Amino acid sequence: MLLSDMKMFRVIKSDLAVLEDELLAASESPVPLITEVGAHLVRSGGKRLRPALFLLAARANGAANFDRGKAMPLAVAIEMIHMASLVHDDVIDRAGTRRGALTANAKWGNRVAILSGDYLFAQAFSLTVGRGYDEGVGLRLAELVSGLTVGEIMQDVSLYSAENTMPEYFQRIEKKTANFLALCCEIGGMVSGLDAGAAKGLYSYGHSIGMAFQMTDDLLDITGDAVKLGKPAGNDIRQGVVTLPVIRALKSSDSRDELRSIVTNGSMTDDMLSRALEIVRSSDGVQFTRKFVDEYLEKAKKSLPENIAGDVRATFIKAADYIGKRDF
Amino acid sequence: MLLSDMKMFRVIKSDLAVLEDELLAASESPVPLITEVGAHLVRSGGKRLRPALFLLAARANGAANFDRGKAMPLAVAIEMIHMASLVHDDVIDRAGTRRGALTANAKWGNRVAILSGDYLFAQAFSLTVGRGYDEGVGLRLAELVSGLTVGEIMQDVSLYSAENTMPEYFQRIEKKTANFLALCCEIGGMVSGLDAGAAKGLYSYGHSIGMAFQMTDDLLDITGDAVKLGKPAGNDIRQGVVTLPVIRALKSSDSRDELRSIVTNGSMTDDMLSRALEIVRSSDGVQFTRKFVDEYLEKAKKSLPENIAGDVRATFIKAADYIGKRDF
Repeated sequence: MLLSDMKMFRVIKSDLAVLEDELLAASESPVPLITEVGAHLVRSGGKRLRPALFLLAARANGAANFDRGKAMPLAVAIEMIHMASLVHDDVIDRAGTRRGALTANAKWGNRVAILSGDYLFAQAFSLTVGRGYDEGVGLRLAELVSGLTVGEIMQDVSLYSAENTMPEYFQRIEKKTANFLALCCEIGGMVSGLDAGAAKGLYSYGHSIGMAFQMTDDLLDITGDAVKLGKPAGNDIRQGVVTLPVIRALKSSDSRDELRSIVTNGSMTDDMLSRALEIVRSSDGVQFTRKFVDEYLEKAKKSLPENIAGDVRATFIKAADYIGKRDF
Repeated sequence: MLLSDMKMFRVIKSDLAVLEDELLAASESPVPLITEVGAHLVRSGGKRLRPALFLLAARANGAANFDRGKAMPLAVAIEMIHMASLVHDDVIDRAGTRRGALTANAKWGNRVAILSGDYLFAQAFSLTVGRGYDEGVGLRLAELVSGLTVGEIMQDVSLYSAENTMPEYFQRIEKKTANFLALCCEIGGMVSGLDAGAAKGLYSYGHSIGMAFQMTDDLLDITGDAVKLGKPAGNDIRQGVVTLPVIRALKSSDSRDELRSIVTNGSMTDDMLSRALEIVRSSDGVQFTRKFVDEYLEKAKKSLPENIAGDVRATFIKAADYIGKRDF
């Protein structure tokens, strides 16, 4: 579901509608195949959480200071960077579908998928130069991409390992998700003309909801409904990604030795995966993780700068609540 | 061989030495594995043609106007973009070695190779923001990356096709190589403080030597020595990349039907490849291509703005001659 369809995001509903058109336009290329890939990626959706947070932050200094023409290229760039990283992830994971649609690699092969991702990165950067943005904006976008790749590589290093520690997990999801959401919020605040202190407050808000968002994602992989998720439960465990509920269960469950032998097995069967899910679900791993989610969401709300008011403030708070409750 | 080892490039010899250190520094990351991949890529070399052209152009407005501190981050960014595109190409082509060294995908797998390429792109962009460059510089770097990917995808679309026309070939190598070298020269001219007209002249120079460079590459694949090249001859034909000598032979050779049946065969044997090489070598395809190379190199020399003088001018001219004569 797009966030723009949710009543709580009505303050940016029209921005998100414009975003869809602009995303299609920015994916166009002189080569028809690239345009086709871009349109497929845009149309296969995604929640648009990152540009939504950015646009919300870009409205945080009051409607009078919101300049859609100035904000929109950055919203597009942010979503294109996200799309590019997903396209490359799908090549890496040899994924066949995402959100019910064929992945670019499944539809056009790895070559086109890798190059389309590179094209999206390049287009994202070109959207951010020559428009008079503060240089800090460009720096943060570059930081965002390098952080993403660092997070993914950190994840790779720790695949199928039962030696993952909580600090490693926190560092990894910070790089992979929290910093991205934090930078969306901060850049939005910068573009809105908020002072540096308030922009940093928005960064903290985004960081905390990013941590909560990734942990919720990791929880859904354990407890979620395959139909709603659009992918089978236990996907992370199968791919060797050891998340917080599992890390906890590896410590606290009576069946921890059995769990350990499964999650470190690079060729686990469906039965083994089901058993691992069963062990984690009946451990305190889920509750343990949920507690962190709630704490991060509380922290997020407290980080919101006081001078952000009205509908925008209310939406930021509802967004945090939504992240705590989402089941897809 | 590094260009810095060649006497003709002595005017930028010290710049190229600094470049090597800066490349290593810029590839560093908080994740040791990324640093290791970066160092491997830097150390496995390459001629450094692109940053060399950029640095030469950055010296084109006289030694007094050359600011190494301002030029070097761009030289590093240019080579990192080139490295990133090669890393992704090697994943796409499943290449095991490049220039005699193991590729990143062979050494660390596709995941690490794809993400390292993304990291290099991001680092390249971050080097170019926050340093007060003209906004046109950033735009041109983004254009360079999107052009590269467009060129590669165009190449993909025409693989194993005997219907490649000369205009398609020219467009493809322009996107893949000539525009890159052109932009290196133009950006160098911009940074040196040359006026826009002279920078455009440098662009034309770079474009022409880029066309000649790629055609020489394509010729070497037909006529080159496997040991000097560090890869077997006929690599392009095997991978379905139909280059100008082959396009010509498909038209002019008495054995064109036989050649056509080989180059369109996605699973050609070694014997078939040898026969295809034999047909192209004994056709007028090589001579035909060489004529274009010579014309482009003449055009390159004529494009050099008149106000570029002295050692820098002499080096630009020698660089064109070198491209015409290189055998590796």
